[in-house]
Amino acid sequence: MSTNDDRLVQSDDPDHPANLIPSLCAKFWTLGWVTGTGGGASIRDDEHVFIAPSGVQKELMKPSDLYVLSLPETLEKHRAAATGGDGPIRPSSRVYVRSPSRFKPSQCTPLFLSAFTRRGARCCIHTHSAHAVLVTLILEQAGASEFRINNIEQIKGFARGYPHAEVGNLGYHDTLRIPVIENTAHEEDLTEFLEEAMDRYPDAYAVLVRRHGVYVWGNSVEQAKGQCESLDYLFQIAVEMKKLGIPWESDIKPTVPKNSLKGQ
Amino acid sequence: MSTNDDRLVQSDDPDHPANLIPSLCAKFWTLGWVTGTGGGASIRDDEHVFIAPSGVQKELMKPSDLYVLSLPETLEKHRAAATGGDGPIRPSSRVYVRSPSRFKPSQCTPLFLSAFTRRGARCCIHTHSAHAVLVTLILEQAGASEFRINNIEQIKGFARGYPHAEVGNLGYHDTLRIPVIENTAHEEDLTEFLEEAMDRYPDAYAVLVRRHGVYVWGNSVEQAKGQCESLDYLFQIAVEMKKLGIPWESDIKPTVPKNSLKGQ
Amino acid sequence: MSTNDDRLVQSDDPDHPANLIPSLCAKFWTLGWVTGTGGGASIRDDEHVFIAPSGVQKELMKPSDLYVLSLPETLEKHRAAATGGDGPIRPSSRVYVRSPSRFKPSQCTPLFLSAFTRRGARCCIHTHSAHAVLVTLILEQAGASEFRINNIEQIKGFARGYPHAEVGNLGYHDTLRIPVIENTAHEEDLTEFLEEAMDRYPDAYAVLVRRHGVYVWGNSVEQAKGQCESLDYLFQIAVEMKKLGIPWESDIKPTVPKNSLKGQ
Amino acid sequence: MSTNDDRLVQSDDPDHPANLIPSLCAKFWTLGWVTGTGGGASIRDDEHVFIAPSGVQKELMKPSDLYVLSLPETLEKHRAAATGGDGPIRPSSRVYVRSPSRFKPSQCTPLFLSAFTRRGARCCIHTHSAHAVLVTLILEQAGASEFRINNIEQIKGFARGYPHAEVGNLGYHDTLRIPVIENTAHEEDLTEFLEEAMDRYPDAYAVLVRRHGVYVWGNSVEQAKGQCESLDYLFQIAVEMKKLGIPWESDIKPTVPKNSLKGQ
Repeated sequence: MSTNDDRLVQSDDPDHPANLIPSLCAKFWTLGWVTGTGGGASIRDDEHVFIAPSGVQKELMKPSDLYVLSLPETLEKHRAAATGGDGPIRPSSRVYVRSPSRFKPSQCTPLFLSAFTRRGARCCIHTHSAHAVLVTLILEQAGASEFRINNIEQIKGFARGYPHAEVGNLGYHDTLRIPVIENTAHEEDLTEFLEEAMDRYPDAYAVLVRRHGVYVWGNSVEQAKGQCESLDYLFQIAVEMKKLGIPWESDIKPTVPKNSLKGQ
Repeated sequence: MSTNDDRLVQSDDPDHPANLIPSLCAKFWTLGWVTGTGGGASIRDDEHVFIAPSGVQKELMKPSDLYVLSLPETLEKHRAAATGGDGPIRPSSRVYVRSPSRFKPSQCTPLFLSAFTRRGARCCIHTHSAHAVLVTLILEQAGASEFRINNIEQIKGFARGYPHAEVGNLGYHDTLRIPVIENTAHEEDLTEFLEEAMDRYPDAYAVLVRRHGVYVWGNSVEQAKGQCESLDYLFQIAVEMKKLGIPWESDIKPTVPKNSLKGQ
Repeated sequence: MSTNDDRLVQSDDPDHPANLIPSLCAKFWTLGWVTGTGGGASIRDDEHVFIAPSGVQKELMKPSDLYVLSLPETLEKHRAAATGGDGPIRPSSRVYVRSPSRFKPSQCTPLFLSAFTRRGARCCIHTHSAHAVLVTLILEQAGASEFRINNIEQIKGFARGYPHAEVGNLGYHDTLRIPVIENTAHEEDLTEFLEEAMDRYPDAYAVLVRRHGVYVWGNSVEQAKGQCESLDYLFQIAVEMKKLGIPWESDIKPTVPKNSLKGQ
Repeated sequence: MSTNDDRLVQSDDPDHPANLIPSLCAKFWTLGWVTGTGGGASIRDDEHVFIAPSGVQKELMKPSDLYVLSLPETLEKHRAAATGGDGPIRPSSRVYVRSPSRFKPSQCTPLFLSAFTRRGARCCIHTHSAHAVLVTLILEQAGASEFRINNIEQIKGFARGYPHAEVGNLGYHDTLRIPVIENTAHEEDLTEFLEEAMDRYPDAYAVLVRRHGVYVWGNSVEQAKGQCESLDYLFQIAVEMKKLGIPWESDIKPTVPKNSLKGQ
């Protein structure tokens, strides 16, 4: 297959990954998540991984700007490495089946692939949201490497994580825990730490990167986007709570009605 | 009638509930009120109740995504319960005349129905607005379960409430009072507390839910939307007032011109 | 002339007042200036005054929603009153040449007319901007009834006022002074105080209303809109300056280059 | 050539400077960067410089509103002056090949030309962003004339500057330094100080103007826009960091993975 097979990114279906990534990124740009060509998004289908290129104006991206990787081979190599193969995954294991000439591959590529191969995710979003960065700075002041918040309704927007996939979403009183990894000089070097965090937090659908942003993934595009929105909303509220002197975690006794409607 | 009668949500009239709910929710998404599939909206006409489903991306919702309930029967059962019937209304009393296969019913459904049956509302909006959540957190710190603000012009955007429906809207010097109910683990369980708050505050067109958001209703779609906008604006200003050390209530002597123009 | 002459609001020219008011108000809605049907705008041409009605959703307004007043007669009555006639202008002096049946006249009407008759303005905008309201609250805490700011570039966006119309705009080092009038229970009652403020501040193109918002006018639609934007920007910065402990006025020595380019 | 040659601003190519400047400015307006006709943008191609006029509503600008200057002659005169010619560049050296009758030339013109002639820039953007102004105010309180920030990922959005053009962009641990020049009463008088700052900061792609805004340029439109977005994002975070008591510079030890992926 040619490395510039344009048919891979041509579809009349607005839900095709090659159309969804540009429309999602344009939306994210209006939210301030992918300003100055920062951040990105990736979607995989059964065969391929579609990735926004490096350095593209995210609100103006076109389907023809996308990179496409062949997933099966990549997956296989990752699988081998994960089962005690020859060390960490290296960029050389990426097989591009489409490379737009105007751009360079995204440095986020190995991080997106981690979400796909280690978590079976279908979509991974990376934002530089100011709210996310501020939360990592507030945590840094406290010497913390974990964002924790509970008793906010929007927490219900998060799935319980892969081992508990059948259990559904987090509850209102549950504590959402998002690990924070330290930023590295080179984005690709984050991969090792991202994967470590995934191992330590098997429930997590997101990892914060100190002074950088956040990676959020999901079992579907809808779930990844919904969790990314919910998380940014929580980060925004968390920053305001900090300014107002309100703690992120609290011990709230459940309120139960006399005649619970639940489950009927 | 089929439970999937698509004609119920097909209309060329942009003011038909099946068209209005998607256009309103898309607008609310840009305001940050229904982020991450949270929040929702419902409109009733004389026969039916139209409700946004659970888990839908609110800015992308289509008329075909909507649930439709038959109101008369629901109303009758509610009426029976309200007059000392067989206890609180249970989800089993909901009669869906249209159920989209892709989605699940909104957990907000019994709360929307309370606004329709107890208050005769025509539209009910539920937002997760960060401003609303922050106001409930600030009140929690003060041990308060009521939001009170006065002497802000936008207060005039609120009706005086059902018993005083003829009297028009609140005045500038009036104190707007919005009850805060505690959040429950399951959204449907809020119904009992929402209805209690409605009983305690017969004037209120809105109820705040601690660490969750707000429910706002109105005698028309325009009124519900207008009050929801006015309230969010007041919440936004209230959070800023808190940061600036300015109290929400004040004792301001009315300013009267020498030659009042009023009433001429 | 019929009081419902639709031709007055029908034009293919996007710059016709009947088209400009809806497009401006839709823009202002996105800025949060006319939320919840609050605020408004009015434009006059040589013969007529066009005014957004009361209670309309500003982002959805249509040309057919507008009121039209006959200006000559209104002007004449105002002129008589201003020259020691029979007291303050009363609503009865308004002559509507077009009244949409769906709405009520805006309570802002006499205030807009003051800008047209006392200042010869062509456009007057009224916003409930949260920034404006917060500035009046900050000033109230300091017991002040005048907003003053200097040494911010955007101050140049303001004209010097009517007596100095030939002199052009304010300079960077000039102090912008905007009077604050106290809010009244009935918006029409503001008229007397607005006109008093106009008399005391012959230079002003805007008046703040405590806990309410701001009125801004201009010799053209472009000027009114530009000044309204510049003022809101200054209010926004002023609120942030207050939070950061930076005074609004400062004594800054002019910076002059060795070889000034000015005036060549 | 006529001074009103409309063909200079007529093109079907959306990437033509005459089309790009209006589309960029409309976008910047939504970001609050060019509110109240403030700010502006300029693009040069090999022959001409295209500049937004003074006093135009930036979100409504049309290609026909643009000024066009002949670059070769302007460049030559600048070059002569730079090599010890007859003193600073004066406005008289500007040769307009297209002057729209409705507007006046932008006072930013000599500043844009400095970016083009001294730095070989292809695009220069001037914003009045509130974040930029607040950063200069915070620095003023500290008696500082340089904005410095490090260890924030978005710093990578900046090129290393002209002498190091081959080296690529700044790294995560590098300190971004943006000079602050004092504002002058007349915008054109900033030119001398802007050029001095360019000389003192040969690496800089931007200069802050105290209490006024920022000038940002780039070797392409994409680079100028991307750097302007990245810088505004950093200013926004810097203001929030100040409110939260977090310093803009920190001494962070690089995090290095056991098996760095970089460079493979």
